[in-house]
Amino acid sequence: MDVSGSAPQRSEAPASPRSEALSAQQDERRARILDAARTCFSRAGFHRTSMQEICAEAKMSPGGLYRYFASKDAIIEAIAQEEQLTGRRILEILLEPGTLHDRLLRSGLAYIEAMRDRRAVQMMLEVYVESMRNTAVGAFFARCEEENRRLFEDAFSRAKATGEIAADADVDTMMMTLVAFADGIVLRMGLNPDYDVERAEALLSRVVTAVLQNEGPPLESRG
Amino acid sequence: MDVSGSAPQRSEAPASPRSEALSAQQDERRARILDAARTCFSRAGFHRTSMQEICAEAKMSPGGLYRYFASKDAIIEAIAQEEQLTGRRILEILLEPGTLHDRLLRSGLAYIEAMRDRRAVQMMLEVYVESMRNTAVGAFFARCEEENRRLFEDAFSRAKATGEIAADADVDTMMMTLVAFADGIVLRMGLNPDYDVERAEALLSRVVTAVLQNEGPPLESRG
Repeated sequence: MDVSGSAPQRSEAPASPRSEALSAQQDERRARILDAARTCFSRAGFHRTSMQEICAEAKMSPGGLYRYFASKDAIIEAIAQEEQLTGRRILEILLEPGTLHDRLLRSGLAYIEAMRDRRAVQMMLEVYVESMRNTAVGAFFARCEEENRRLFEDAFSRAKATGEIAADADVDTMMMTLVAFADGIVLRMGLNPDYDVERAEALLSRVVTAVLQNEGPPLESRG
Repeated sequence: MDVSGSAPQRSEAPASPRSEALSAQQDERRARILDAARTCFSRAGFHRTSMQEICAEAKMSPGGLYRYFASKDAIIEAIAQEEQLTGRRILEILLEPGTLHDRLLRSGLAYIEAMRDRRAVQMMLEVYVESMRNTAVGAFFARCEEENRRLFEDAFSRAKATGEIAADADVDTMMMTLVAFADGIVLRMGLNPDYDVERAEALLSRVVTAVLQNEGPPLESRG
């Protein structure tokens, strides 16, 4: 599987009203296939889903589907790239203006919003399973995580510069703990559909505060 | 699959030195099969693992293995019951003496300790995937979670009675958030083997404090 992040292959013909209409139709069909694939993968996982099942779910002929994706791996790759773009957009909130605390909270809430689709949580679990088995999907995920880590580090460095977090704060541990927390929340949203994450919002804000206060005295001795 | 929690079928013959030796040998073989199954499941998942592969991993003949487990489902059931017992033992820490904060932290650290085996995290992910698909394994997991929830509620009720948490604290949200946090941490231990959870211990303690302080003013305005 090639998940090297190369640009998707699209027609490079000069735009005309007719080719634009064609391109819009192609985009729509491509999106329909990926949506059908997500449904199939969430039902049975990557390995037990066949191209035939994806065709049936997308209500397309195999001939129609193979014009867009040559293999199941190509579909998984396209979904992985979509997920990466979503993740990137959510993490770029960390570079916006405001305190690190507020940016982390906004980014976390955007992540929660993106994961309200039950299938998204199921895809996340599939990817984590693959990742722990060191497969091609797992390797792609590891590269995305490395990029995300740099973005996090950038945001934390700035917060050290402004004094919002201590100069000797253990940034690695802070970052990993916040990521763990975010993953755990969306996992529980998937496992317990009655988990009302809106009610947890004030609590999440306090948790972020507690994590950022890395080097201070224990809270019990304050105030 | 029968995961009704019925007692495992063992020989009920009166104990003699000879039958005790036999029983010890049976226990050892049973444990060896379950250990082999965990290795296979973590490598390929529940669905893509065959009884043949478990035999090979356990270095036993099919005839030997089938004397202990009639099917792959029976093996999954036995592993699920082992996991349930481990989970129960960890949560019973919540009913020990001490503050709720300290019991939650000790229970969390015991969970982390139990999940240091990479295969345990992989099994957890497998079970969560099944759970979201409402399979028999998922239904068993849901029943375990319900039991665990009652134990949590008991501990939180006592903390309300002693005044350690506010009388009107939103216990559901607190519990779910703590469980999410614990799951997220062990998930990250699996995904990022270099995540040094020892370094996070002081931070985890502060997070528990922040969660329990459910109804108070924001931390920023304290002290």
